[in-house]
Amino acid sequence: MENPNFSYQHLWQFAHDIFLKIGCSPDHARQASDVLLSADLRGIDSHGLARLSGYVRLWEVKRVNSTPNIRIVHESPSTAVVDGDQGLGLVIAPYAMEIAIAKARTCGTGWVAVKNSNHFGIAGYHAMKALQHDMIGIAMTNASPLVAPTFSVERLLGTNPICVAIPADKQPPFVADFATTTAANGKLEILQRKNQEAPVGWIQTKDGGPSTNPHELKDGGALIPLGSDREHGSHKGFCLGAWVDIFSAVLSGANYGPWVPPFVSFLALPNDPVGDGIGHFFGALRIDAFRPANEFKHHMDNWISRFRSAKTIAGQLHVIIPGDPERECEEQRRKDGIALDPKVADDLKQLGEKLGVKL
Amino acid sequence: MENPNFSYQHLWQFAHDIFLKIGCSPDHARQASDVLLSADLRGIDSHGLARLSGYVRLWEVKRVNSTPNIRIVHESPSTAVVDGDQGLGLVIAPYAMEIAIAKARTCGTGWVAVKNSNHFGIAGYHAMKALQHDMIGIAMTNASPLVAPTFSVERLLGTNPICVAIPADKQPPFVADFATTTAANGKLEILQRKNQEAPVGWIQTKDGGPSTNPHELKDGGALIPLGSDREHGSHKGFCLGAWVDIFSAVLSGANYGPWVPPFVSFLALPNDPVGDGIGHFFGALRIDAFRPANEFKHHMDNWISRFRSAKTIAGQLHVIIPGDPERECEEQRRKDGIALDPKVADDLKQLGEKLGVKL
Repeated sequence: MENPNFSYQHLWQFAHDIFLKIGCSPDHARQASDVLLSADLRGIDSHGLARLSGYVRLWEVKRVNSTPNIRIVHESPSTAVVDGDQGLGLVIAPYAMEIAIAKARTCGTGWVAVKNSNHFGIAGYHAMKALQHDMIGIAMTNASPLVAPTFSVERLLGTNPICVAIPADKQPPFVADFATTTAANGKLEILQRKNQEAPVGWIQTKDGGPSTNPHELKDGGALIPLGSDREHGSHKGFCLGAWVDIFSAVLSGANYGPWVPPFVSFLALPNDPVGDGIGHFFGALRIDAFRPANEFKHHMDNWISRFRSAKTIAGQLHVIIPGDPERECEEQRRKDGIALDPKVADDLKQLGEKLGVKL
Repeated sequence: MENPNFSYQHLWQFAHDIFLKIGCSPDHARQASDVLLSADLRGIDSHGLARLSGYVRLWEVKRVNSTPNIRIVHESPSTAVVDGDQGLGLVIAPYAMEIAIAKARTCGTGWVAVKNSNHFGIAGYHAMKALQHDMIGIAMTNASPLVAPTFSVERLLGTNPICVAIPADKQPPFVADFATTTAANGKLEILQRKNQEAPVGWIQTKDGGPSTNPHELKDGGALIPLGSDREHGSHKGFCLGAWVDIFSAVLSGANYGPWVPPFVSFLALPNDPVGDGIGHFFGALRIDAFRPANEFKHHMDNWISRFRSAKTIAGQLHVIIPGDPERECEEQRRKDGIALDPKVADDLKQLGEKLGVKL
């Protein structure tokens, strides 16, 4: 069956109307739709419309507040902590990133830790907001525990992504946006749909043994930190995931490690929370707080061209610069539309029928 | 043959006297010895005394200036760029980290990019300086190109380590200090000495094929970014190494990518430099610019205890908290002394004889 195809604008409008239906203000509905749809545009389908009914279910069980009072609860010249008041992460994160950018304007850099939030969409959307200001943007978030640290059979960390977005001049920006695991959960979901096995090194069984079953997590298994095993540096992937967790949640006062609340509404919340909601961390560095922005961007052009034109292994066209595949996907989908997975399209249709919005 | 054993103090004094002999000021000689020996103490033997005669050779060929005028060349309230004047990285890096700490004191965070430097020892020494101030410390550096990005046969990046040091209260600090490759070059050196093969996934041949030969780099091969191959996320390791390279060198005005000058004095400098020397990047975040330090450190204790006591895979004692192995090594070596590899001891003896310092 062919995947039904929709224009970006059509899907954006659908998401927007759904967010209005759950009580979001027009501003918040626009912002949330921009963030959510940026995932579908950039080819990170697991973080876009596929999650819309998940957000709505969280709202239904009162784990998401559609009229939050998002505010700064602590700050210094270059830092702030934001309390998201249990709002949509899709709305809280851009608010926090704007504060980081404002602080970078006056102070050189800005760093904002967020508590009392939930899933914020793709990290890349938030980090890339810095680019238009000739700033470097950083975004990270913790997430519900699916990952076992090296030697552990317990799931203690989320896939905890990091994005670093760096402006260039004539070249497109460098945008590295990646989960700190060997494979993101979205990749498992693709294998599940296709009924295919996962490579060894992505997941482990509930006892910590190797597994190629993409459904292994339902049976107590876990995702593995980047590196796959100790011999290949999984302790480094664990370091990265831990770094994201601590910056996002221990600095802000959110839940960390195994206490991070689940995204899915049918799982109970941990009954001994150590903080509020999930946490994010954002940074903005003004380039000319280091050197003139035009000089920097000229050298970034040189960096990118040199790496892209490196001599490659036989059969490979060129070295992929971080951000290239997502940008190319966005260009194509803005033009040709977004093909939704049939299951996602069905789910959205049902959601729309329930709330009185036509897909 | 047993490795000769020396007290920390004895080896520190030797390094100190060597640094005086090449013209360092007493302050610089003390600082350089502290940094260099911290590697031997913490078990990162490849970055300690094993490199001392390498630094001296760089001084001999006038690639290291033993009386540098290290200075800030650009700054904002939360940032600075430092020109190391071709001094020892071992001296420049602590100077830069102090600036980051001073800026964090007034501004919440401090971020310092460094150019015109060279090898700075272990990243951990510098990041950990922040801990005593109830700050988080970050240190990273680029390095001469030994690493092929995913799909490349050319070596374009260094092993580009990152350290993040985070204070706790009753627990020892969290100190993640790691090369952004599957294995650090020092691990290859150990295999070379033992005449053992490397695991598949650490290195590639000059054509990009798999290799287990720890001498492969001498034949045009390369180290591989963390992740080992595309299927296991080596593009994420490439993102990390690139991030370190750009923050350390494109922000500061140092050489980046394949232009980074070699550590060894017998290799020629690239004849088309894009900046000055090698680059570093340092950060300090004052905890109470986010939340009260005692609250934060209490939660770090909880984080660390929870992870350390996780249920483990059969045969593993516990989850290793980043920094534990190095701290335990330091405690033991301060007590029992440091056993030098015989080749390193011989090399130091010859160096001492040449410069009139007894090992």
